[in-house]
Amino acid sequence: MKLSAVLFLSAVSTVLAGRTLVFPTQTSTSYVEMTPLKPLSLRAFTLCMRVATELSGEREIILFAYRTQHYDELNVWRELDGRLSFYLSGDGVLFKTPELGPMETHLCFTWDSSSGAAAVFVDGRKSLTKVYRKGHTIRSGGKVILGQDPDAYFGDFEAKQSFVGEISDVNIFVGEIGDVNMWDTVLSDSTIRDMFNGKKVERGNVFDWESTQLRTNGDVVVVNREL
Amino acid sequence: MKLSAVLFLSAVSTVLAGRTLVFPTQTSTSYVEMTPLKPLSLRAFTLCMRVATELSGEREIILFAYRTQHYDELNVWRELDGRLSFYLSGDGVLFKTPELGPMETHLCFTWDSSSGAAAVFVDGRKSLTKVYRKGHTIRSGGKVILGQDPDAYFGDFEAKQSFVGEISDVNIFVGEIGDVNMWDTVLSDSTIRDMFNGKKVERGNVFDWESTQLRTNGDVVVVNREL
Amino acid sequence: MKLSAVLFLSAVSTVLAGRTLVFPTQTSTSYVEMTPLKPLSLRAFTLCMRVATELSGEREIILFAYRTQHYDELNVWRELDGRLSFYLSGDGVLFKTPELGPMETHLCFTWDSSSGAAAVFVDGRKSLTKVYRKGHTIRSGGKVILGQDPDAYFGDFEAKQSFVGEISDVNIFVGEIGDVNMWDTVLSDSTIRDMFNGKKVERGNVFDWESTQLRTNGDVVVVNREL
Repeated sequence: MKLSAVLFLSAVSTVLAGRTLVFPTQTSTSYVEMTPLKPLSLRAFTLCMRVATELSGEREIILFAYRTQHYDELNVWRELDGRLSFYLSGDGVLFKTPELGPMETHLCFTWDSSSGAAAVFVDGRKSLTKVYRKGHTIRSGGKVILGQDPDAYFGDFEAKQSFVGEISDVNIFVGEIGDVNMWDTVLSDSTIRDMFNGKKVERGNVFDWESTQLRTNGDVVVVNREL
Repeated sequence: MKLSAVLFLSAVSTVLAGRTLVFPTQTSTSYVEMTPLKPLSLRAFTLCMRVATELSGEREIILFAYRTQHYDELNVWRELDGRLSFYLSGDGVLFKTPELGPMETHLCFTWDSSSGAAAVFVDGRKSLTKVYRKGHTIRSGGKVILGQDPDAYFGDFEAKQSFVGEISDVNIFVGEIGDVNMWDTVLSDSTIRDMFNGKKVERGNVFDWESTQLRTNGDVVVVNREL
Repeated sequence: MKLSAVLFLSAVSTVLAGRTLVFPTQTSTSYVEMTPLKPLSLRAFTLCMRVATELSGEREIILFAYRTQHYDELNVWRELDGRLSFYLSGDGVLFKTPELGPMETHLCFTWDSSSGAAAVFVDGRKSLTKVYRKGHTIRSGGKVILGQDPDAYFGDFEAKQSFVGEISDVNIFVGEIGDVNMWDTVLSDSTIRDMFNGKKVERGNVFDWESTQLRTNGDVVVVNREL
């Protein structure tokens, strides 16, 4: 009796409940606020997520925004020309990578202040390393949102830069973001590859997608699925 | 003596006999009827198959059809523009995906009525999730066929929409479908990835390709091979 | 002393010495004759090889030829349009596949007389199955060569159809073939995938590349490398 109970528990523990945020339509009021586990005073980070979008062509897409009252502390973008980038309060660092598309892509962005080393991992494969903002510190005290560019601290969102949207009646854009995890260190290449392959790795200590509190606004659907 | 018999059996059990349905020519009378293990009264499903076709260009291809007397309860299509889609008695949900082609592709379609979450997996990779037909129930009492669109319950099939076909003498279309399995739940991402990679997963409880009864009509060849 | 010798041998046995045949230039006299382990009286086969070529464009390339005195019993081609094909004394069966190119491609051709099922595997991925020459038997008593089309039993080779060549001074063609193994059965999908991935599988019982005797003629270089 006891044995079967143990077996049952061990079976359950292998089931990973995953939430995915679906932004089915463009609305300037749709976004999700994430509550971090610790203040975002960071001299290094690894920020990972899974993204899928049918948006294509020349269009900027914001994937992650962390803003304090006066600064965009860490914004992650898909640029007009398809490159991936992030910005630490000022000019950003851009990476040529395989393009985001309608099939789910696993992304990790890494940065280390001590060397300035910055890189992107797309489906576990590393981009070339760039030297960016050596010595800089990301400041705490702001808010993190997904789905919008918080230009003026949750002020007026610009519809053109929302994660999903409809520029005119002709196109309807859709997209999803999930598995948003963040560490205050640079994870190893093999850890990031393991994460892409669905293996369990150490949980994020800044954001842990399994436990992080999500506050949704507007037309955002939270879908639960097993990973 | 007994030992060797046991060893022999264990060796045999790792050999997976797989049937593949080959539709070598276009004929409006070629289709295969599948008998389900339970009534298709479904509020969720995972439907998987392996497909290869030399059909290309602007052409609709039906991959799976479940029809009750008055409704197309669940039809799966490759659309004119190459997108994959499914329809639950009414407008469908369409997904941008890598295109089907002459090399075998593994497909899984998932849908869950409680959230409306719908997705496609192509060779183990998930598309973006769409919200579709939340609260809907697929009704039982119909028939499932492969290779044709049963517009009027096994009535007159339209040659242009058959899985394989010949619009004129110029082109000869060919294709194959196999490994058609269906569950009344949404399988986890990792289970679907394992299935694509040829690992054994729990057998389908709506359709189990290894045991399901197939009734072939017209020019359909059933090929047995080891997986 | 004896122990270390054993260990040494076991270490050596994990190093797979692989021969590759390089055809560096076009010459109508370059080919390699392979001696089979048993007569090629076949009602089924799996024929695998690794091929790389910088040949491109509209050009036929013969990859394998088995000819008895009066018949091309089994010829394997890359057709003018890039399709892969094989011919059992008569019209052939053609497959749309990813194109051969300058990076090494792993190919397996399978055929089974009892069902007529024929398929190609490119880098472990199966094409669609075609029904071809059901009931036919490949006859023994011929010769197998690589690099040329033996139109008249080692007679006059046609320069245009040699595996590598130079039609004019404008183009220089290069290519290599290796790992040519053949079985008198249809191997399972997973065995072929393992072979592509470099795992050890059961040795070919018609041709075993590790032990088969090669008789080279003309400008053919045998390169040894570790696999």
